[in-house]
Amino acid sequence: MSTPGFDELKQRLAAFAAERDWDQFHSPKNLAMALAAEAGELLEHFQWLTEAQSTALTDAVRDEVALELADILLYLVRISDKLGVDLVAAAHRKIGLNELKYPADLARGSARKYDQL
Amino acid sequence: MSTPGFDELKQRLAAFAAERDWDQFHSPKNLAMALAAEAGELLEHFQWLTEAQSTALTDAVRDEVALELADILLYLVRISDKLGVDLVAAAHRKIGLNELKYPADLARGSARKYDQL
Amino acid sequence: MSTPGFDELKQRLAAFAAERDWDQFHSPKNLAMALAAEAGELLEHFQWLTEAQSTALTDAVRDEVALELADILLYLVRISDKLGVDLVAAAHRKIGLNELKYPADLARGSARKYDQL
Amino acid sequence: MSTPGFDELKQRLAAFAAERDWDQFHSPKNLAMALAAEAGELLEHFQWLTEAQSTALTDAVRDEVALELADILLYLVRISDKLGVDLVAAAHRKIGLNELKYPADLARGSARKYDQL
Repeated sequence: MSTPGFDELKQRLAAFAAERDWDQFHSPKNLAMALAAEAGELLEHFQWLTEAQSTALTDAVRDEVALELADILLYLVRISDKLGVDLVAAAHRKIGLNELKYPADLARGSARKYDQL
Repeated sequence: MSTPGFDELKQRLAAFAAERDWDQFHSPKNLAMALAAEAGELLEHFQWLTEAQSTALTDAVRDEVALELADILLYLVRISDKLGVDLVAAAHRKIGLNELKYPADLARGSARKYDQL
Repeated sequence: MSTPGFDELKQRLAAFAAERDWDQFHSPKNLAMALAAEAGELLEHFQWLTEAQSTALTDAVRDEVALELADILLYLVRISDKLGVDLVAAAHRKIGLNELKYPADLARGSARKYDQL
Repeated sequence: MSTPGFDELKQRLAAFAAERDWDQFHSPKNLAMALAAEAGELLEHFQWLTEAQSTALTDAVRDEVALELADILLYLVRISDKLGVDLVAAAHRKIGLNELKYPADLARGSARKYDQL
């Protein structure tokens, strides 16, 4: 793919904020709010759809949803950068914790399946 | 870094869900709800902190926050996979749109700075 | 009903905060975050349920949900008090605006029905 | 006050939905999503403001915020009606539980103050 990868996002966002003098607004508290607000915009796309409809979006709607998901990722990368968190390493660590918490043979068909990814 | 990277998350999550027979619960609608619920958990860590306090978390709290950010990323990767969205490409596309929408020279000090990353 | 009504909530919450010296934490910004975090907890109760299941909760689950709804109302009343907003008057005003925006005869079966209550 | 009160909201919303044949969309699951999406819109008004700025909104902004708070209350009343929950009674019950959980003399200055209203 011709687009740059995940690792380029952090630096590109840092430059974007620096060039606009927006770092002053990017406290972790404020970025957490902005991320949650974007998650709310994601909900708006799905709130009146059935689950089945949500699996069969038109190309136009899927494109809008893709940009909402992008907004969430951008704030996620930005807040991680501001906090000094290695986001991808934390994600792999969390999957590992979930694998221990929900053993495949026990979790299958268990109510505990409702708890997590 | 010794941990696997971003590209490994999608397959690892798909396998995690398949082994537990949880795909049945992972409609885009449901995953959007789960993502927003995790964003709410992120807010809980910051809601009573000042902005200054949010920039100086203890290691213990930052570690808890890192796992909340991880949860959000996991749902973000999962819903993107289910929708057939290239999340990283969409993120770079969105930054490009923001660069056009907020020219650095005009955005600096502008009220429009409040609108976006 | 033997419980006090809606109008008693504002004063009871103000006294609750004053007695604990918590007003210092109750800026509108912080209260908005706390309200959104509670909305996230509400989502958690429904995220893996089908729509049909969400209409047939057990008494135990409905009771848990009732307390989540209560938390949201408490923050809503508290932030309205802090902002000097008459919450109930604003709600009636908003319904009036929606009645004008979505005329019953036009809205029935219209895609615009997805936009609002 | 010349406007109708809290108790009139439930019936007015039920009539509004019935006249537009929107009950079909108002499952508790969907209403919880719509409520959380409105909470996200509330966050947008405050995310780049300091706490001090959030306490001194212009009349124009406070009016916009009032309508966001109204949207949240409308969904809160609607979901409570659909679930058969007495929202105000639940709110008073919750304050009572908080009064027991956070005794005024112990909660003052305690870290536990961060947990609740």
